Amino acid sequence: MRHFTSVYDLPSLEVALNEAFLVKNNPFGFQHLGKNKTMVLMFFNSSLRTRLSTQKAAQNLGMNAIVLDVNQGAWKLETERGVIMDGDKPEHLLEAVPVIGSYADIIGVRSFASFESKEADYNEVVLNQFIKYAGVPIVSMEAATRHPLQSFADLVTIEEYKKVKRPKVVLTWAPHPRALPQAVPNSFVEWMRAADYDLVVTHPEGYELAPEFMGDLKPEYDQMKAFEGADFIYAKNWASYSDYGKILSKDMNWTVSTRQMDITNEAKFMHCLPVRRNMIVTDDVIESPNSIVIPEAANRVVSAQAVLKMILESL
Amino acid sequence: MRHFTSVYDLPSLEVALNEAFLVKNNPFGFQHLGKNKTMVLMFFNSSLRTRLSTQKAAQNLGMNAIVLDVNQGAWKLETERGVIMDGDKPEHLLEAVPVIGSYADIIGVRSFASFESKEADYNEVVLNQFIKYAGVPIVSMEAATRHPLQSFADLVTIEEYKKVKRPKVVLTWAPHPRALPQAVPNSFVEWMRAADYDLVVTHPEGYELAPEFMGDLKPEYDQMKAFEGADFIYAKNWASYSDYGKILSKDMNWTVSTRQMDITNEAKFMHCLPVRRNMIVTDDVIESPNSIVIPEAANRVVSAQAVLKMILESL
Amino acid sequence: MRHFTSVYDLPSLEVALNEAFLVKNNPFGFQHLGKNKTMVLMFFNSSLRTRLSTQKAAQNLGMNAIVLDVNQGAWKLETERGVIMDGDKPEHLLEAVPVIGSYADIIGVRSFASFESKEADYNEVVLNQFIKYAGVPIVSMEAATRHPLQSFADLVTIEEYKKVKRPKVVLTWAPHPRALPQAVPNSFVEWMRAADYDLVVTHPEGYELAPEFMGDLKPEYDQMKAFEGADFIYAKNWASYSDYGKILSKDMNWTVSTRQMDITNEAKFMHCLPVRRNMIVTDDVIESPNSIVIPEAANRVVSAQAVLKMILESL
Repeated sequence: MRHFTSVYDLPSLEVALNEAFLVKNNPFGFQHLGKNKTMVLMFFNSSLRTRLSTQKAAQNLGMNAIVLDVNQGAWKLETERGVIMDGDKPEHLLEAVPVIGSYADIIGVRSFASFESKEADYNEVVLNQFIKYAGVPIVSMEAATRHPLQSFADLVTIEEYKKVKRPKVVLTWAPHPRALPQAVPNSFVEWMRAADYDLVVTHPEGYELAPEFMGDLKPEYDQMKAFEGADFIYAKNWASYSDYGKILSKDMNWTVSTRQMDITNEAKFMHCLPVRRNMIVTDDVIESPNSIVIPEAANRVVSAQAVLKMILESL
Repeated sequence: MRHFTSVYDLPSLEVALNEAFLVKNNPFGFQHLGKNKTMVLMFFNSSLRTRLSTQKAAQNLGMNAIVLDVNQGAWKLETERGVIMDGDKPEHLLEAVPVIGSYADIIGVRSFASFESKEADYNEVVLNQFIKYAGVPIVSMEAATRHPLQSFADLVTIEEYKKVKRPKVVLTWAPHPRALPQAVPNSFVEWMRAADYDLVVTHPEGYELAPEFMGDLKPEYDQMKAFEGADFIYAKNWASYSDYGKILSKDMNWTVSTRQMDITNEAKFMHCLPVRRNMIVTDDVIESPNSIVIPEAANRVVSAQAVLKMILESL
Repeated sequence: MRHFTSVYDLPSLEVALNEAFLVKNNPFGFQHLGKNKTMVLMFFNSSLRTRLSTQKAAQNLGMNAIVLDVNQGAWKLETERGVIMDGDKPEHLLEAVPVIGSYADIIGVRSFASFESKEADYNEVVLNQFIKYAGVPIVSMEAATRHPLQSFADLVTIEEYKKVKRPKVVLTWAPHPRALPQAVPNSFVEWMRAADYDLVVTHPEGYELAPEFMGDLKPEYDQMKAFEGADFIYAKNWASYSDYGKILSKDMNWTVSTRQMDITNEAKFMHCLPVRRNMIVTDDVIESPNSIVIPEAANRVVSAQAVLKMILESL
C-alpha cells in the first residue's frame, strides 16, 4: 500500500482488519519498521483525536512524528496555479509539498472541505496536490470528502462489538449549529458497504449524500423506521450536498434520544467525536452502557497504526 | 503514587526528596520505566518552564511526550454537564478526557483559575474531571488552586541552599499589573508547612490566602518585620481571595528591593517565574549573587522527573 | 565549534563541507552523539522549512527536539533592560534565556529583523542575549541579519550542481509586496565570498546591502548584464538597508523570467523559499528543469545536521 485516502487503497478489507488486530494485540512489536523514519503530520484544520492517535501510532511503530500546524507555526499556502502571489499567502503548495516530502518518509494531511466550491472540495484539490507532488506516501487525516482513518476505526469497533455476522448499521443525521462537511458520513457509507453490513442511511430530505458514495443505496427519510431493530446507531451531522454546504434543518426531533434507541435491538451508540451533547445525542444515551464512543475513539490508534504499518512495509 | 495534584499525594516528603536527588544525580538511569509509555501534556493556558521541563523530564525517563495546546491545535472544551452544546465549544470534557486517557499512560494538565467563580476554581472542576474520567494518572501542571510541581522544585532548591536545618522562609506579596491566581502561593504555603520550615507570609490586608492553606498560620502585614533575619525570600503576586480575583493594591513599596533584602540574613531570592522586573523585584536584587531563580527553575525538571518516576513505578 | 551564527563560526569552509557530505551520505551514523541530548527550537517567527529540517536533523543525530513557539504556546518576552514591566510582556529574556539553557543542550533561535530600529536589528539584540545568557551553544535559525543554515545549504547545493570550479553566481533582487529583512542576501553574500565564487549582486539603486557584507564588492545595477553567462541565479527580495526597511521599488521587470534566464549559461535557478510566484520568479522558470529549489531546500537537513554534529562533538 502506498497512499491511504479511502477504503479502495487497502490491499483488502480482510488484510486490513487482520493488521488492525495484530497491532492492537502487539502495539510495540513492529518498531523495527519505523526506525529512523519520520512522519510529518500537517494540519490545515484543528484536531484532537487525529493529532494524538496518529502521533501515538507512529511512535508505537518506532517513527519520529513531527507536527506542523500550517496556519499557526507556518503560514497560509496558495493552492491555485498561475496566480500572481501578492496577497496573504507567501508560499505555494507546489513548493511546500515536495519540500516537506524531502523531509518526511510519510506525510499525514488534514484538510477539510472549505464549502467555497463543491467542485474543488469533491476534487480533493489539496490532498491530490500532496499525492502528486510529495514523492512520499500520503495518509489522509480527514480530507474534504472522506475521513478513512475514522471509518477504519469504526469498522474495527463494529467487528469487536457485533453479535451477528451481518449487523444492521444505521447512519443517522442529527442537528448541529454549524455547517459540517460530509467527509465522515461519505466515508462511513463507503466502508460499511465494503464490509457488506446491512446499512441504512437516514436523514431529512435534502441531505442526500453524493451518488458516488451512496451507489444504489436509497435513504430512509423516516428515522424511527430506520432505527427499528438496529444493532449499531452511528450519529453525525452534515450539511447539504445538493444545496452545497447549507443547513436545511435544525430539527431537534432528530437528536438521538432514548425515544429512538428504545426501538433498536439494544443498539450500540457510535459517533466519531467531537460530539455536541443534546444536539446530536442526549446526555443519557451517550452515557449509557450501550455507548461505545470511547472504545471507538481508542481504536483510532489501531487504525492509524495498521495503515502506517502497511505503508512502512511497502517502502 | 497515582495522581499528583498536591503535597498530600506524595508517599512522604522524605521519599519524594530522595527521589528528586536520585534523578538529579542520574537523570538517564531510569529509561526502562518509560519505554513505550506516552505522556500527553494538555495546556489550557500558556506555559514556558512547565512545557519544556515536563517534556524533558518525560524524555529523560524514556517516555514519548505529546503536547496539546487545547485552544490552538484543538478546540474549546465544554466543562458543564447538561447544557445544549450549540455555542463555541464543540466537545465536552466528558468525551475528551477518557479519549485522551485511552491514548496516554499519564496526562499532564495545566488549567488556571478563571476568576469567573471562586467555587468552580476552588473545587478544581477541570482537574477533577480529568481525575474522575481519564482512567490514567493525572499530573497537575498548575491547576486553579495549586502548582505542586513548582512547589516541589522550590522545596528541592531550598534543601540545596539552606544553611540551617529549619530556615526562615518568607513568602511576600508584590505588585503586578494584572490579576493573578493564588495557585503558587497556596501551594508554596502547603509545601513549606509540610517541610516544617519557619514560614512567614506577608502581604497587604485583603490578600489573605484561603484558610484551607493557611491553617493556623497568621499573616504578617508588616513586610519589613517579616523580612528580618529571613534565609529565603519568595516573592509572588496574587489577587485577592476574599474579594475574589480583585486587585486591591499596586503599592510599589512592596516591590522587593535592596531596602528589604538588606535586613534579611543574606537571604536567597526566589520566584517561580515569569517575573515582571521592577514590579515584583528590582533588577539589582534579581541579578544579585543571592538570586537563585535560575537554579530554582532548573529544578523544575527534577521535580517533574521525580513525580513521573514514582507514578511510572506504580503503573 | 560552539555557537553557529555565521560562516565565521565554522572551523573552516572545507571542514564544514566535508561534514555536510558525510551526514548526507550517512544520516543515521552518528546517533551516539545526540543520545540523551535535547535541542530546544525557539521560534519568535513563523517557519516551515527551518522548523521541519532542524527537527529532522536533530532526530537523525539521536537528539530529542522540543519546539517552542514563543508567541503562541508561551508569551511575549521583554528584551530591553531596566524597564518597569507593567505592559504586555510578562517575562524578560534575562530570565527566560538561562532557564531554557538549563533545559537544553543546544538552543536554536529564530528571530527576524523587526525593522523598528536598524541599530537593534544589526546589533542582533535577541540572538546576542541568547549567546550571552543561555550557557549552552546557540544555533541561529535565521536572525535579524543572517540566515546561515540557509546559506550553508545553498553552498552545499552549488557544490553539488556546479560544472566548473569557480562558477558565476548571481544574487538578484526581485519584487515583493511586503518589506523583507536582508538576512538571506547578507548571509548569501558572506558565504559565497568565503567560497571564493565569481559572485555578482544585482538590484535597483537604493537596495545596496550593508558594507560589512559587501566589502569591496560593487553591485551591478543592470540585471541583464549581471545575468550574462551566469551558472547560478539566486533570487530574493529584500527591503532597503540605507532607507531602512522601506520598499523603494516593485518593478516587475526584475521578476526572473525566461527573458533573463535565456542569456545565462543555462544557469540553475535557486531561491531560499517561501517564494511568491510571478513576483519573484515566473511559473515557467521555477518549474523548469534548471530550477533546483527543491534539492536546495532538502539540503537544509544536511546543513543543520552538519552544524549540530560539529557542536555535539565539541560539547
